[in-house]
Amino acid sequence: MAQAMHEFDLIARIAARAGTGAAARADVVLGIGDDAALLRPPAGERWLAVSSDTLNVGVHFSVDDDPADLGWKALAVNLSDLAAMAAEPAWCLLALSLPSPDPVWLDGFLDGFEALRGAHGLALVGGDTTRGPLSITVTVIGSVGAGQALRRSGARAGEDIWVTGTLGDAAAALVWSAEAGCPAELRQRLRRPTPRVEAGQALQGLASAAIDVSDGLLADLGHILVASGVGAEIELAGLPCSPALAAVAEGRQRWQWQCGGGDDYELCFTAPVDQRAAIMTALAAVGVSRIGRVRAEPGLRVIDPAGRPWQPQSIGYRHFAEVCE
Amino acid sequence: MAQAMHEFDLIARIAARAGTGAAARADVVLGIGDDAALLRPPAGERWLAVSSDTLNVGVHFSVDDDPADLGWKALAVNLSDLAAMAAEPAWCLLALSLPSPDPVWLDGFLDGFEALRGAHGLALVGGDTTRGPLSITVTVIGSVGAGQALRRSGARAGEDIWVTGTLGDAAAALVWSAEAGCPAELRQRLRRPTPRVEAGQALQGLASAAIDVSDGLLADLGHILVASGVGAEIELAGLPCSPALAAVAEGRQRWQWQCGGGDDYELCFTAPVDQRAAIMTALAAVGVSRIGRVRAEPGLRVIDPAGRPWQPQSIGYRHFAEVCE
Repeated sequence: MAQAMHEFDLIARIAARAGTGAAARADVVLGIGDDAALLRPPAGERWLAVSSDTLNVGVHFSVDDDPADLGWKALAVNLSDLAAMAAEPAWCLLALSLPSPDPVWLDGFLDGFEALRGAHGLALVGGDTTRGPLSITVTVIGSVGAGQALRRSGARAGEDIWVTGTLGDAAAALVWSAEAGCPAELRQRLRRPTPRVEAGQALQGLASAAIDVSDGLLADLGHILVASGVGAEIELAGLPCSPALAAVAEGRQRWQWQCGGGDDYELCFTAPVDQRAAIMTALAAVGVSRIGRVRAEPGLRVIDPAGRPWQPQSIGYRHFAEVCE
Repeated sequence: MAQAMHEFDLIARIAARAGTGAAARADVVLGIGDDAALLRPPAGERWLAVSSDTLNVGVHFSVDDDPADLGWKALAVNLSDLAAMAAEPAWCLLALSLPSPDPVWLDGFLDGFEALRGAHGLALVGGDTTRGPLSITVTVIGSVGAGQALRRSGARAGEDIWVTGTLGDAAAALVWSAEAGCPAELRQRLRRPTPRVEAGQALQGLASAAIDVSDGLLADLGHILVASGVGAEIELAGLPCSPALAAVAEGRQRWQWQCGGGDDYELCFTAPVDQRAAIMTALAAVGVSRIGRVRAEPGLRVIDPAGRPWQPQSIGYRHFAEVCE
């Protein structure tokens, strides 16, 4: 049974968990508790990198989902955006809409949020708590050396296309979510994705363009291609597959999950051919696979292991899939 | 009749209205359209000031409200937070959850949002568009000279308490909203509040503490008192009242709206007595009224025109007013 809580109690609870002011980071002048946070900009020739992402109940997650997983994921999807820019995270803000001020739910949510926040040395410096249908918007701010960020627009014909980690696990878990027996490794990938923050920064000077795989490999790679004015060819045989996924799916079903499934939060990036050895070394810890080539001709060709063109059923998640009239 | 729109269409529509990259501000390296925005930090010894605020349908506004008013207000409440810190706004992010991708609604929303954004030379550099119950979270980032920000914690016994503009208009309009005949001046104050951005910056070096009046004068002043470890005495006779409000309310009803009504977005601030003349000059354009004194004794006393203590029915808006079990 939840107790009555007011907004200021919620904020106090969040602030107590997050730590405030100088306790959080040396560059936090003033954290949670005033009209705005005050932050020291990064020293040296650095740019700020800023991103916001929202998760809504019934759209991005179910009301029954573990609040700790939601707390983790709400931050993870934002850190993933900074990772794709090769930026170093510094601060975040949490805007939380809750149908009721439930301290048990909030503590669970903060368990997951704080675990990931702490792992990245990020300070929670502000936000909002309001009444409304469950919705979580996180804003992350980081920094990157001037001119060092990885944009979507830098891919050039002849370059390699790479992806970190493995693809398709989260999509498989999403399909399985209504049923019992989903392998724990797959479920973990969906619920607690690992933002590739260190990998992103390691790609400075090596990669030419990058994006995180949130909507699906083909959809997200498509953004790089459009922004760069190029095309690409992807080989299904090269797509990295976890042992857990390999054990439960093969062929078209697996390819579909690997190409069209979102929520993996791996990095897809392009790089000149002469960077192959350096990339393998820099990303040895997380794992990295070469999956195709950038081409001058527009369009995205997918080649199956027999060398034939392959057409996915769906290229990825679109946020407003329904036609409304 | 709305047309089908996908997330990327919505983002394109927003980006087209907002302008991107260097077109927006010289310090925007990369705006809407990548995984994160890239921004040049302010030059010189300046700190960043950052704040997020959410407006939810059914809580902060009605589904029937004019989308242009919502667009204005969603940004205004955030700019008001920067104003209360004496910060200069620079950039913002817009996270928009919509039940359906309705371009007519979006264009209306952007009419109001863009009008206020343009007036303050702010760049819209990112955000998110997702499906969900109508919810708007704006994050604003600005800067303020190192050590020049106005915090809640700086009030000292013996200082004056001031407020900009007039109080109670928005509260009166809120009560009236279900009925016809609300004077246009009052309705305008509720729907299109003016964030006191220039006034806030003008108070650098003059005020000792500041907050914006979003939840009600007494509730918000209370935050200053708690943060500063002081008390205060307020004189009802000194509360600034617009001609429109004076024409429709007097006595207890008016005081209640002026003391307990939120949504005015005026600045309440404290300042040493020897700054009176300078404050009157600096804030002549917006108008400013001396409404009380900071006291060493804790607590907030309200004095009516006859010199008697006055007890409001409610001290202001609390975001989670219901008890939930």
